[in-house]
Amino acid sequence: MKLVIQKYGGTSVGSIERILSVAQRIKKWRSNNYALVVVTSAMSGETNKLLGLISGISKNNNKWSREIDQVVSSGEQVAAGLLAVALNEIGVPSVSFTGWQVAIKTNSAHSKARINSIDTEMIMTEINNNKVVVVTGFQGVNNCGSITTLGRGGSDTSAVALAAALNAQECLIFTDVDGVYTTDPRIVPEANRLAKITFEEMLEMASLGSKILQIRSVEFAGKFKVRTRVLSSLTNYDIPIEKESISGTLITHEEDKKMENAVISGIAFNRDEAKITITGVPDTPGVAFRILGPIAKANIDVDMIIQNSSNDGSTDFSFTVNRVDLDEATRVIETKVKSEINALDISSDNQICKVSVVGIGMRSHVGVASQMFEVLSNEGINIKMISTSEIKISVVIDDKYMELAVRSLHDAFGLEKK
Amino acid sequence: MKLVIQKYGGTSVGSIERILSVAQRIKKWRSNNYALVVVTSAMSGETNKLLGLISGISKNNNKWSREIDQVVSSGEQVAAGLLAVALNEIGVPSVSFTGWQVAIKTNSAHSKARINSIDTEMIMTEINNNKVVVVTGFQGVNNCGSITTLGRGGSDTSAVALAAALNAQECLIFTDVDGVYTTDPRIVPEANRLAKITFEEMLEMASLGSKILQIRSVEFAGKFKVRTRVLSSLTNYDIPIEKESISGTLITHEEDKKMENAVISGIAFNRDEAKITITGVPDTPGVAFRILGPIAKANIDVDMIIQNSSNDGSTDFSFTVNRVDLDEATRVIETKVKSEINALDISSDNQICKVSVVGIGMRSHVGVASQMFEVLSNEGINIKMISTSEIKISVVIDDKYMELAVRSLHDAFGLEKK
Repeated sequence: MKLVIQKYGGTSVGSIERILSVAQRIKKWRSNNYALVVVTSAMSGETNKLLGLISGISKNNNKWSREIDQVVSSGEQVAAGLLAVALNEIGVPSVSFTGWQVAIKTNSAHSKARINSIDTEMIMTEINNNKVVVVTGFQGVNNCGSITTLGRGGSDTSAVALAAALNAQECLIFTDVDGVYTTDPRIVPEANRLAKITFEEMLEMASLGSKILQIRSVEFAGKFKVRTRVLSSLTNYDIPIEKESISGTLITHEEDKKMENAVISGIAFNRDEAKITITGVPDTPGVAFRILGPIAKANIDVDMIIQNSSNDGSTDFSFTVNRVDLDEATRVIETKVKSEINALDISSDNQICKVSVVGIGMRSHVGVASQMFEVLSNEGINIKMISTSEIKISVVIDDKYMELAVRSLHDAFGLEKK
Repeated sequence: MKLVIQKYGGTSVGSIERILSVAQRIKKWRSNNYALVVVTSAMSGETNKLLGLISGISKNNNKWSREIDQVVSSGEQVAAGLLAVALNEIGVPSVSFTGWQVAIKTNSAHSKARINSIDTEMIMTEINNNKVVVVTGFQGVNNCGSITTLGRGGSDTSAVALAAALNAQECLIFTDVDGVYTTDPRIVPEANRLAKITFEEMLEMASLGSKILQIRSVEFAGKFKVRTRVLSSLTNYDIPIEKESISGTLITHEEDKKMENAVISGIAFNRDEAKITITGVPDTPGVAFRILGPIAKANIDVDMIIQNSSNDGSTDFSFTVNRVDLDEATRVIETKVKSEINALDISSDNQICKVSVVGIGMRSHVGVASQMFEVLSNEGINIKMISTSEIKISVVIDDKYMELAVRSLHDAFGLEKK
């Protein structure tokens, strides 16, 4: 019997009707002789409701995180129990386990814990009893027996980690989209669902704004080589699902994807960022740290960092932060950095966006960057910052050109529907 | 340092404001140098909400009780976590534990589990760290690591059991009434709050309709001699509470109560019952079983059972059931019992009520029964059934006379406010 992990998000179990419909889907898989471990999120809205109660009591959200985990982990417990009731009710023997019952052992970093190990004994016993095992996503237990949570989207990581621990054939992530697209179809209607994408590409796509999977789950899937598939919880797929080449998006290894010869897999974008530029920065050792140290101390995340080589002993230094952090970041630079490093001036821009082309194929194909810059140039779009990695090229441009840039690049790299 | 257990019901933690107010009360106790273990119910309405979700999925409430316990136990987990956050927030170091974290070990009778043992180590460690320990009421864990629940009102039992295990000085049950009364003040405005009541009396009062504590918690308190006090969560008592002789009602042992010379502690009543009488029942061995066996098989609870001794070889047999079960009970007797035992006739009456006088003192005082019957006779109230135990006398009378009977008895036994 083949074992698969299926993960259902909050929307998929957001009401009694949806829970019953997920149960019917699982029944179909069981009757096709699959063994199943099902990971569930909390019913949609529940986690926010619980966080709302907490914020009515305390604004110190980081300080009492053990207790907050105790509270918010209850949402998945409810959903898992309800799904197990629904399965039993339609004749599919089922049992639910919380993270601590499994046990999914984590470190003690409450609210953003990391999984250390998973005991598979109880799950395998119930699988061998022909039961569907429903496991709460998003949570585990530390060495002291305290409940921990894995951060927003952590149920994806629970599912992938269970797939790795149980050596499952595949980890199926049922969500409200039917796969990973070459870009956002709301911007480019011709966007194409990718049948396959590599872990590395998925990491770049996810972190760049295609918010489908928790990034950590993709890292996990890559590290433990877990075949992970993103699917729609609303579509009725045939079983076995791998027969349909068009089912969702399979996140896989580079080797598996080589037969496809696309250089670029997708165009990602992000309009949540803002840019700060410091001009006249003395080009001396340690200056980058003297700029970004205070920013980090203020708990502000930095994304892109650009420093040009200088000729005259001074240079310009730019970096991007989340748009909501711009005021605070500017204040830090003005008060704690500017006079310290003897900079000339500080400017900021929150009317920017980041557009990236992502593809494992660009490793072996020269000219992707120049093609990208040519496309933008032809559209008259000025590039403000450039940053590259092995499998992606990101540019910062004016916010207002974002849709135009995404559409032109999508077209130029041949990603449209065939 | 004296250790007390405090239990707060659903209404007491029913909103953010109430949780904050409970936290302030606990802070006051801490500053009076008490060590505290606090047992909390779910926020009012939560358990019913969760049961509502379940009943949308399944009507087989008994069949999937392991999963149902998994779901409904989450309510206390949320309340306990929130209370711990509130305590920490106002500078009272606190930690919350679920039933399994403690661990409160129970048998596997899901939805009505019984506590077998309580590990005190984790709680005592945290008490010694000067922390207030908040424990979820209503729940425990069985030997397989499954969450169990203790039945409606089970948080009372959790509190008393913890008091016994931790050898606490007292178990304080904060609820929405300020103690146990000689009878319901809505019927007799002169009803008197009892400063003390014995466990045995409380058992009779509770089972007869004074619904203040889960009966099991009183049994537990009696068995393990736990000083248990019922108090209002809305009153601001002075600390230490025992100084005020008027604080709530202390449930105690017979010896402790002897100094008070009241013969009767209270008048209980119940109008949820209905009576079935079978006439012309052959007075042969086994006939009671042949009547009540089918009733038990139909899962109908029987309260009072009366059979007179007979002279002519046939007798009348009466019993009472919950009013909602009357139709079903009558049907069972008509179809499965009547011809079987060759009875003459069956009659039923749902316009009845039960009134009881309860008092540990009646053990040593003759004449309570005759005084009771005289009072009722003086009011022209006909007695339909009589049943007695060592510390209570119950009569079944016409429903319409209930208030009159309760008032007259309350007055005759001198229970009014002084």
